[in-house]
Amino acid sequence: MGCRALQLLLLAFLALGAALAVRPALRALGSLHLPTNPTSRPAVAKNYSVLYFQQKVDHFGFNTEKTFKQRYLIADKHWRKDGGTILFYTGNEGDIIWFCNNTGFMWDVAEELKAMLVFAEHRYYGESLPFGNNSFKDFRHLNFLTSEQALADFAELIKHLKRTIPGAENQPVIALGGSYGGMLAAWFRMKYPHMVVGALAASAPIWQFEDLVPCGVFMKIVTTDFSKSGPNCSESIRKSWGAITRLSNTGTGLRWLTEELHLCSPLTSPDIQQLKDWISETWVNLAMVDYPYASNFLQPLPAWPVKVVCQYLKNPDVSDTVLVQNIFQALNVYYNHSGQVKCLNISETATSNLGSLGWSYQACTEIVMPFCTNGIDDMFEPHLWNLREYSDDCLKQWGVTPRPSWITTMYGGKNISSHSNIVFSNGELDPWSGGGVTKDITDTLVAVTIAEGAHHLDLRANNAFDPESVLVARSLEVKHMKQWIGDFYKMARKHH
Amino acid sequence: MGCRALQLLLLAFLALGAALAVRPALRALGSLHLPTNPTSRPAVAKNYSVLYFQQKVDHFGFNTEKTFKQRYLIADKHWRKDGGTILFYTGNEGDIIWFCNNTGFMWDVAEELKAMLVFAEHRYYGESLPFGNNSFKDFRHLNFLTSEQALADFAELIKHLKRTIPGAENQPVIALGGSYGGMLAAWFRMKYPHMVVGALAASAPIWQFEDLVPCGVFMKIVTTDFSKSGPNCSESIRKSWGAITRLSNTGTGLRWLTEELHLCSPLTSPDIQQLKDWISETWVNLAMVDYPYASNFLQPLPAWPVKVVCQYLKNPDVSDTVLVQNIFQALNVYYNHSGQVKCLNISETATSNLGSLGWSYQACTEIVMPFCTNGIDDMFEPHLWNLREYSDDCLKQWGVTPRPSWITTMYGGKNISSHSNIVFSNGELDPWSGGGVTKDITDTLVAVTIAEGAHHLDLRANNAFDPESVLVARSLEVKHMKQWIGDFYKMARKHH
Repeated sequence: MGCRALQLLLLAFLALGAALAVRPALRALGSLHLPTNPTSRPAVAKNYSVLYFQQKVDHFGFNTEKTFKQRYLIADKHWRKDGGTILFYTGNEGDIIWFCNNTGFMWDVAEELKAMLVFAEHRYYGESLPFGNNSFKDFRHLNFLTSEQALADFAELIKHLKRTIPGAENQPVIALGGSYGGMLAAWFRMKYPHMVVGALAASAPIWQFEDLVPCGVFMKIVTTDFSKSGPNCSESIRKSWGAITRLSNTGTGLRWLTEELHLCSPLTSPDIQQLKDWISETWVNLAMVDYPYASNFLQPLPAWPVKVVCQYLKNPDVSDTVLVQNIFQALNVYYNHSGQVKCLNISETATSNLGSLGWSYQACTEIVMPFCTNGIDDMFEPHLWNLREYSDDCLKQWGVTPRPSWITTMYGGKNISSHSNIVFSNGELDPWSGGGVTKDITDTLVAVTIAEGAHHLDLRANNAFDPESVLVARSLEVKHMKQWIGDFYKMARKHH
Repeated sequence: MGCRALQLLLLAFLALGAALAVRPALRALGSLHLPTNPTSRPAVAKNYSVLYFQQKVDHFGFNTEKTFKQRYLIADKHWRKDGGTILFYTGNEGDIIWFCNNTGFMWDVAEELKAMLVFAEHRYYGESLPFGNNSFKDFRHLNFLTSEQALADFAELIKHLKRTIPGAENQPVIALGGSYGGMLAAWFRMKYPHMVVGALAASAPIWQFEDLVPCGVFMKIVTTDFSKSGPNCSESIRKSWGAITRLSNTGTGLRWLTEELHLCSPLTSPDIQQLKDWISETWVNLAMVDYPYASNFLQPLPAWPVKVVCQYLKNPDVSDTVLVQNIFQALNVYYNHSGQVKCLNISETATSNLGSLGWSYQACTEIVMPFCTNGIDDMFEPHLWNLREYSDDCLKQWGVTPRPSWITTMYGGKNISSHSNIVFSNGELDPWSGGGVTKDITDTLVAVTIAEGAHHLDLRANNAFDPESVLVARSLEVKHMKQWIGDFYKMARKHH
């Protein structure tokens, strides 16, 4: 069960899609699932219109003519009808305003590309709820939450924009997205190449399925990040699990752990796995947001947070109690950088959060990503990937059975060389790069790697502390986009 | 209403997919919808195994885990594990055995290509009924009858074959199909290029949607066929409608028509439109099966049947009664070549036939093909394309509303140049060529036209009377297939 919990945590994490790894973000996103209580965060000096488009609930069947309102955002300050382009963010599993505000790259390049920015919300997230408050009620209401339906939404929305915005009709559209949104951007170009001239798929683990990559690669990269960020850092963490286990064997030990870790509720023996999963998730989160500058979303994090964490984890050869005390210091970097937090709550996991409901369903149907650890190549306790157990849990939770090979059937797995015009970008620090495309497949299916990059750093706004590698990546991405746009207009001129 | 009836007839005709245009074939197909009474015609000296594969009823949703048995045929006499290939017929709207027996081309090239032949039945046709006898009960049961589900069936089936047939895994697959099956072959390559290295789409009217081609092009080609096949032939037919109208104005006239046309039931005034539609359909059918040799399916037709028909229609400047008598002689070529038929039954239209039920639903949902006539560019009475009326009829008949632009959204309309390795073949005599791809789009999206070809003549077996144009077409098709196969093996060697 521990393994299953770990996997869900990871998946829920991807659910956040962008760099924000902090639990409160999940809570906030969760509340956005209720349209009666919209709490979208205000735009950070970004100027866009909020619009809605009537979508069919079911693009692939004709039983129902039911529709729902898909939310999308448009920013056209820099858009030019003459020679312009449309940058279309293929929204992922969360509030689209949040993605809009965290995809500074699109805003940064808008002027240069004379681009209209469009951010399309993914169905079942944010305000785009096919059945309103009942959307997550049961598997019948959730039946239309699939990547195929989401792609069809994007296609219909683009048709709508081209039909209704004068000047848009004869312009090229480029799909962009990060994480799951990046997967959608790539898949959209693969399945609807008539809709978009190309796609930028940032940190998109399109191969984190079946046995396309080893199930351990994700946690191995997390471990490498920690190994590289300080001497003995990963070794200290690897040793900490045993220390926690030994300490939790007695009532005294449990009380001591509760106190030293500043937990909000007293630990009991059955909570130990949850405690370990929660700590594991924290290391994963830190690896993903290991950005070169202080990032301040819902709570502040220092620059290169993994390095900061590792300062507390230099010595693995200490007593269990000292080791756990060091772990607490490290956790505090993540949970209490401000020093204002009174206690830590291990039950506030992503999976228990409303915001991750949709993703939990997707992980139980199409998006089945195998994860495992062995404790040797990584710093975690060994957990096998157990599809049977995973499947049983899904049946219990949602009444559905995962189809682990469907995504490969649908989107081609590693056999995608006949497609074109997709840039796959990956940060080498990002654990998700293990399931991503990190080598060129063809001249037009291109991999861009960012040595100092965590989870889609390239999609974030320009920053004075950006390392050279992300600047190079962004300029490559712009070069490719200009190429696609140029090819589009060249072809258009030929036909006129 | 006449217009709607005409359209349905045309569509039902396409439903047959291959060259067989005779009503009894439809009846026979119809009976095959009942698995309790399978009456598949015996193989004509073709040796294949009949197999079944468990398919999910819904590939695009997780509400139901229900499955059904998809039928498929395999012929592997000429298949070689070393350097062989798999030719995969993407079955259309009918009994797969019938398509298997009428796609002689695949059998003819099997040895040269060391090919395994696979014929996959389309869901909701033949024996492949998702809900058995209830499959056509209502729109709830019909909900899974879409091209997308059919393509997903093909993808799953190919995966199954590669998994279970030793030697198949590392071989290239080529999709082939005619008419709607040809559309599916092309769409399959577009959507699942990781599954098939190329597609031969014979007589596939992938552009007979929305306003991609003029709605009148189909009947214009029918008319041209008749114009070219005899002096004054189309003119005689154009004049015949007025003659029928005038004669049907009186009771005496109706009785005379009944007698002279040898109808099985007495004509009444309200039947006149049905009579005209039935005659129109006959001309359409004849244009489609205007083959260079006598074809004998369920009833015999002479070589170049339109020429034979036109021998009776040389003189348009005769009295109404003589003109109608000539029309009867012409109809008799089609309905009574043997001379054994006692009377003609105008109520035996394709639309009243069980066999076309599935297609009628598809025409009312996704496959919305606009047709029209104006009586000037064609030899028919003028009928506008009326989507509203069409839609209303669909709602009445099936409780569904057509989505006329969906196919273009899904499959790209004319904007398909980013795809590759599809040969579109069209016979210039074939009315469906009007909605087909008859010019090269790119180096690898190639049009093959057959000057003397009717509806996918190229897919039919070699015949001593085959005109040069179809021989050239077939050899081009083989050349392209060999190219795809060669490229596949070249790439495979590179990776090993």
